[in-house]
Amino acid sequence: MTIQEAKTVFRDHVAQLKALHHAMGMLSFDGATTAPEESAEGRGRTLAYLSGCAYRAETDPALMEAAKYLEARKEALSAPERREIELFLRENEYTAAIPQAEYVGYAELLNRADAVWHRAKLDSDFAGFAPIIRDIFAANVRFAKYYKPDQAPYDTQLSRYERGLTMERTDAFFGALKERIVPLLKKVMAKPQIDDSFIWGKVYPTEVQRRFTDYLLQVITVDRKRCGVGETEHPFTTFFNKKDVRVTTHYHEENPVYSMYSVIHEGGHALYELHSADELEGTLLSGGVSMSVHESQSRFMENYVGRSRAFIELIFPRMQELFPEQLAGVTAEQMYLAVNKAEPSLIRTEADELTYALHVLVRYEIEKGLFDGSIAVEELPRIWNAKYREYLGIEVPDDRRGVLQDSHWSGGNVGYFPSYALGSAYGAQMLAKMKECVDVDGAIRSGDLRPITGWLEEHIWKYGKLYDPMELLERALGEPFDPKYFTDYLEEKFSRIYGLD
Amino acid sequence: MTIQEAKTVFRDHVAQLKALHHAMGMLSFDGATTAPEESAEGRGRTLAYLSGCAYRAETDPALMEAAKYLEARKEALSAPERREIELFLRENEYTAAIPQAEYVGYAELLNRADAVWHRAKLDSDFAGFAPIIRDIFAANVRFAKYYKPDQAPYDTQLSRYERGLTMERTDAFFGALKERIVPLLKKVMAKPQIDDSFIWGKVYPTEVQRRFTDYLLQVITVDRKRCGVGETEHPFTTFFNKKDVRVTTHYHEENPVYSMYSVIHEGGHALYELHSADELEGTLLSGGVSMSVHESQSRFMENYVGRSRAFIELIFPRMQELFPEQLAGVTAEQMYLAVNKAEPSLIRTEADELTYALHVLVRYEIEKGLFDGSIAVEELPRIWNAKYREYLGIEVPDDRRGVLQDSHWSGGNVGYFPSYALGSAYGAQMLAKMKECVDVDGAIRSGDLRPITGWLEEHIWKYGKLYDPMELLERALGEPFDPKYFTDYLEEKFSRIYGLD
Repeated sequence: MTIQEAKTVFRDHVAQLKALHHAMGMLSFDGATTAPEESAEGRGRTLAYLSGCAYRAETDPALMEAAKYLEARKEALSAPERREIELFLRENEYTAAIPQAEYVGYAELLNRADAVWHRAKLDSDFAGFAPIIRDIFAANVRFAKYYKPDQAPYDTQLSRYERGLTMERTDAFFGALKERIVPLLKKVMAKPQIDDSFIWGKVYPTEVQRRFTDYLLQVITVDRKRCGVGETEHPFTTFFNKKDVRVTTHYHEENPVYSMYSVIHEGGHALYELHSADELEGTLLSGGVSMSVHESQSRFMENYVGRSRAFIELIFPRMQELFPEQLAGVTAEQMYLAVNKAEPSLIRTEADELTYALHVLVRYEIEKGLFDGSIAVEELPRIWNAKYREYLGIEVPDDRRGVLQDSHWSGGNVGYFPSYALGSAYGAQMLAKMKECVDVDGAIRSGDLRPITGWLEEHIWKYGKLYDPMELLERALGEPFDPKYFTDYLEEKFSRIYGLD
Repeated sequence: MTIQEAKTVFRDHVAQLKALHHAMGMLSFDGATTAPEESAEGRGRTLAYLSGCAYRAETDPALMEAAKYLEARKEALSAPERREIELFLRENEYTAAIPQAEYVGYAELLNRADAVWHRAKLDSDFAGFAPIIRDIFAANVRFAKYYKPDQAPYDTQLSRYERGLTMERTDAFFGALKERIVPLLKKVMAKPQIDDSFIWGKVYPTEVQRRFTDYLLQVITVDRKRCGVGETEHPFTTFFNKKDVRVTTHYHEENPVYSMYSVIHEGGHALYELHSADELEGTLLSGGVSMSVHESQSRFMENYVGRSRAFIELIFPRMQELFPEQLAGVTAEQMYLAVNKAEPSLIRTEADELTYALHVLVRYEIEKGLFDGSIAVEELPRIWNAKYREYLGIEVPDDRRGVLQDSHWSGGNVGYFPSYALGSAYGAQMLAKMKECVDVDGAIRSGDLRPITGWLEEHIWKYGKLYDPMELLERALGEPFDPKYFTDYLEEKFSRIYGLD
């Protein structure tokens, strides 16, 4: 085999895998957006077949041979080529450790799981969902053990989403957060609450909210020629290639703010995927590097841009134009305060910036317990509710608004939740760094967000997966990650809004 | 090899092919409905890869060996198994005769073609579309010659859509139609025209039309748990399996009747696919047997049901409820006459029942000429316009409303058009037969269409592809196909509506 031959084998397999994942992603996207109810079974069969093809392509001895041949001749490769081989072998080791039948069975399980979760959530029926969740966690524990028999399975799983992340580091991170957020939240709750009642009691038609979505995506510079918008129960973003990204949202006719922040959040994910450097397209290095860095981008747009006073001042006139009767007499300042109201609540995706990390903490601790066996699946509702009582001081009235609210577990995204809190914290540190050279508020106020998106593209987006998350962050930030930027930001912002001393 | 082993090989390959076609169909459906503009390139790569997989699966020597082994042991197979092997070998012969590179290249061509056609139609730019159409027809001529070197390529192509159809038979069919329809149309045109002006000059919001779509599909008994609705430039129906069918429509805000009949037409296709017998699911025998029989079902719903006085009386109250201001003071009788207005027009999909076959005739004669080389691609606009002048007495103002109006050629559906006219004629004969035992108007008037759909399910739908079209028709009709039922129907209906002697 020559280097050139090995590269051809590798490139050809990468192209095959990209095609298969595109097809699977498309089927799943359709399943979550427009597919008719009874289509799940047929989709499951097709996904199982395609995932078998992907498994075979990924574990093809010819591919492994080529990758290992190239790894042994690193000096003849460019830096991106080396990185691609490294990432491939790393991920492949995980997949290859799973017996094919289990791999395919897991794909089928996930496909079934989505419909079961939807149904269970609708009926607030945890018992109906429990067997699925048991199987999904059991599979992930098993897979982690196949891959790294001597490592705690949850460490393995955390590190799959965020290279190098461990329970020890995550515990420390959440410790730092709790120490600052819990007392801050107490002070906030002692103050008079923000009045957001003007939003409620009206109808914001879906049709008009769709136009609002178009406007918001345009403001945050999402290129709609490369980005579609779908409607789902639980919003998400999916990416097929650099020219084909899909965001989704869910319209609540009683309050347009839900979809507004879904759209900005998912738009942040989309921007990251849409701006990998052109030369990475078609390689394994295109697209976001980790879930946490992805969340840093989505939450950057959602919170540091979207919940800023400047942003609300920018978009409120258009919002009022779209909902003239519903928002008659309302000021931008009222809207700014309303979208920053901090208060313990039941639903993570609707949580404010301040309490959000506590929702994540609940899920992190539960996942940890499910992985190490200290929590049994049937105890989940009880434990979930107890943790909400403890951290957020709130009673969970039913599982629909409790343990059944998120799609992550049924989607197999186990170990993903910490990414949300880490992402927020990464984003806060990026904001601080960006402000050294960009007039962030000025850019937002002007309506031209390109100084902001330009910074993100230059320091984060264009690199795709070229660097591991921690290295990418240090290069962008000029120093190691430190959660204090996040807690400082929260303290400053909420002290100002709530008039704390 | 044992019979059981051969069956397993065959079943396994059929399952693979179904999965691949499901994935490809999904990508194409998305491309036509919700995909962002610049996504075509990436979709093309994935479709090319999947179609290569399908080609390999379909021409796998192990599969051929198994199929031929089973064919040689027909006596050990059930009738449906025999039929499946027969259909497979028949279709496979066509595919296998095409070199793989050409097969994959053609899939890529079709994927590109769709975007080129959209653009060309928008700009009324035939020159931009001409190279694509040349390549598509050339490929189809080549493929037909690979398959049957001694047969006229267009005969080969016609027979792919409708087993046994030839130019000779199609010429005779259109001859019979022309002979009755052209004089009838002349008489109609000599009468005062129906006034449908009350429909125009108003806005029928897309959002409300969507609700109308839901209602119409419910009336014609389409099970929405198994049938999604998409929005496209050019309406079509696609089917992934018995529990997953998608219809599409296009909303014109100035006139709800366009989408209304698109929906009923596509709904007719959907019903056929949704009602193959359960035991055919997962085999090659599930779904409609031919394009003409498919069109007989869609046009049955659209015209024999949807344009009947009983149907309009049934649905008009709901229509008026949805569009109370737009249709204030209008009667069901006015609407009945409006949807049956017969008049030469430019656009096939908007043509009335009477002139429709003449639109098809134009396309048939052009395809014939493109196949035998008597028409060159660059002459198409001139010839198209001349034929519209000759058969319909109408001037074509631009190619957008002329030769560029249909998506069929860019979709590779070459030789398909005659199916529309044949389908209408088959449907008319089914209507006559059905009336021997079903009170068709009574069923429609009652709002419960199940006596009608029950007859169609019992005589057409449930059989899937078990019989060749002509055999299926003769079994259902009790006599051979005869176009006079269609021309009699047209003469009776339009004489009544226009008060002819």
